[in-house]
Amino acid sequence: MDKPTLHIIKIGGKLINEPELLSQALASISKLTEPTIVVHGGGRQATALCKSLGIPVQMIDGRRITDGPTLEVAIMVYAGLTNKRIVAQLHSLGRDAIGVSGADADLIRSIKRPPHPRDYGWVGDVTQVNAKRFGEFISQGLLPVCCALTHDGHGQMLNTNADTIAAEIAKAMAEHYQAHLSYCFEHEGVLTDVHDPYSVVSKLTSKAFQQMINEGSIHTGMIPKLSNGFDALSNGAHQVKICGISGLDNPLAGTQLRSSL
Amino acid sequence: MDKPTLHIIKIGGKLINEPELLSQALASISKLTEPTIVVHGGGRQATALCKSLGIPVQMIDGRRITDGPTLEVAIMVYAGLTNKRIVAQLHSLGRDAIGVSGADADLIRSIKRPPHPRDYGWVGDVTQVNAKRFGEFISQGLLPVCCALTHDGHGQMLNTNADTIAAEIAKAMAEHYQAHLSYCFEHEGVLTDVHDPYSVVSKLTSKAFQQMINEGSIHTGMIPKLSNGFDALSNGAHQVKICGISGLDNPLAGTQLRSSL
Repeated sequence: MDKPTLHIIKIGGKLINEPELLSQALASISKLTEPTIVVHGGGRQATALCKSLGIPVQMIDGRRITDGPTLEVAIMVYAGLTNKRIVAQLHSLGRDAIGVSGADADLIRSIKRPPHPRDYGWVGDVTQVNAKRFGEFISQGLLPVCCALTHDGHGQMLNTNADTIAAEIAKAMAEHYQAHLSYCFEHEGVLTDVHDPYSVVSKLTSKAFQQMINEGSIHTGMIPKLSNGFDALSNGAHQVKICGISGLDNPLAGTQLRSSL
Repeated sequence: MDKPTLHIIKIGGKLINEPELLSQALASISKLTEPTIVVHGGGRQATALCKSLGIPVQMIDGRRITDGPTLEVAIMVYAGLTNKRIVAQLHSLGRDAIGVSGADADLIRSIKRPPHPRDYGWVGDVTQVNAKRFGEFISQGLLPVCCALTHDGHGQMLNTNADTIAAEIAKAMAEHYQAHLSYCFEHEGVLTDVHDPYSVVSKLTSKAFQQMINEGSIHTGMIPKLSNGFDALSNGAHQVKICGISGLDNPLAGTQLRSSL
């Protein structure tokens, strides 16, 4: 028998920052008839809160350092404000959402990234996804909404990239489900020209992706997302795509990642 | 057959504000062998965050008004910082905690309090506790950690008193469990003299409580807690007590509420 479909949908970028776009995305998600897990970060709100609280933003190689105060802000915004906004809205749309971090029900464990050669602070690399517990929640009719935080099992919360969390969930759930992983954001897919919204690449192989990196023809912000996507694809995910809101209910929209064409 | 015991433990006051006391309380809770639900507010941290963000504290009759920015702070601190701190710590103590607000899995619905005669803002009065879902989580070996937030089912989060939430959970769970409700804080129980920690009242009837109110011999901050406790006791809760950390594993410690002596 075929495995049942499971959607793992990461919502990010402007979809998190702009309430109107978030509502549209959640309306589309609420219409999906298959089991679904939503993953989200916290968008610009965490940066804005750091600024309001006078917490300086520290970067290494374009990546943010999660010091103690920054972790507290991440927990407040990701697990608090953003997560509960999404959960409450999904209930208003008739879906029985449950907001979680990786600490809740021990869903996602991680290990603090070693401080050498770069110390990124309170950042965790995923070591284990509790596929059994996610499966139980889905069987109970719940729609897990997972924020970009994990825990180390020893009482420490850790900041973890939301794209990576989505990929790790897709990989872990692939044993029992056809995992359909979608990275949903404000563009319609991977663009060959970031200024032309119609320049969507419909299919992308990892070979073509490597070529785009070498040519510098891909937006640097897309590289980690696509690396996570290809990782999921070569580790059990049935389908991975990068898409806009319209891609949530249109299987032809967006950029499909392919191991080969 | 006797109903199984279920502990509903509200932790509040200085137990939330002081990490060392919180750790002690959670260590005691982690040793309980019966199913447990923890309820918490956010303590002083919400007030401190409001202050840092320049959000003015508005009070009516000694009760705080939850305007829009204050609700956002409550969501960030209660559902974010405090909830995840408790959940991560309980996991480090071997308990499979899951942090929830009333919106998650539709656990606690409420209705916005009418703005007349006093407009308390985004405050919700509980209309329904999802006892079935709480029961499922308990059967799955999970320990729900519930913060003081509810939702109206139409996408709106609402601030709700943690003492009331604990009482409402105890009432709703009483059909299938012997609900043991404990209000745990920094004192050893109800004190006849707030300056004398040994002046613990061991048993308190609602009649004696009324008398203490009339005489003005009870700390005003205790009145809503005790009112909630007596409400739970007369609506199905098997046992209600006000206690300190030592009361969590010592059945004789603390103040037992009694319908009559």
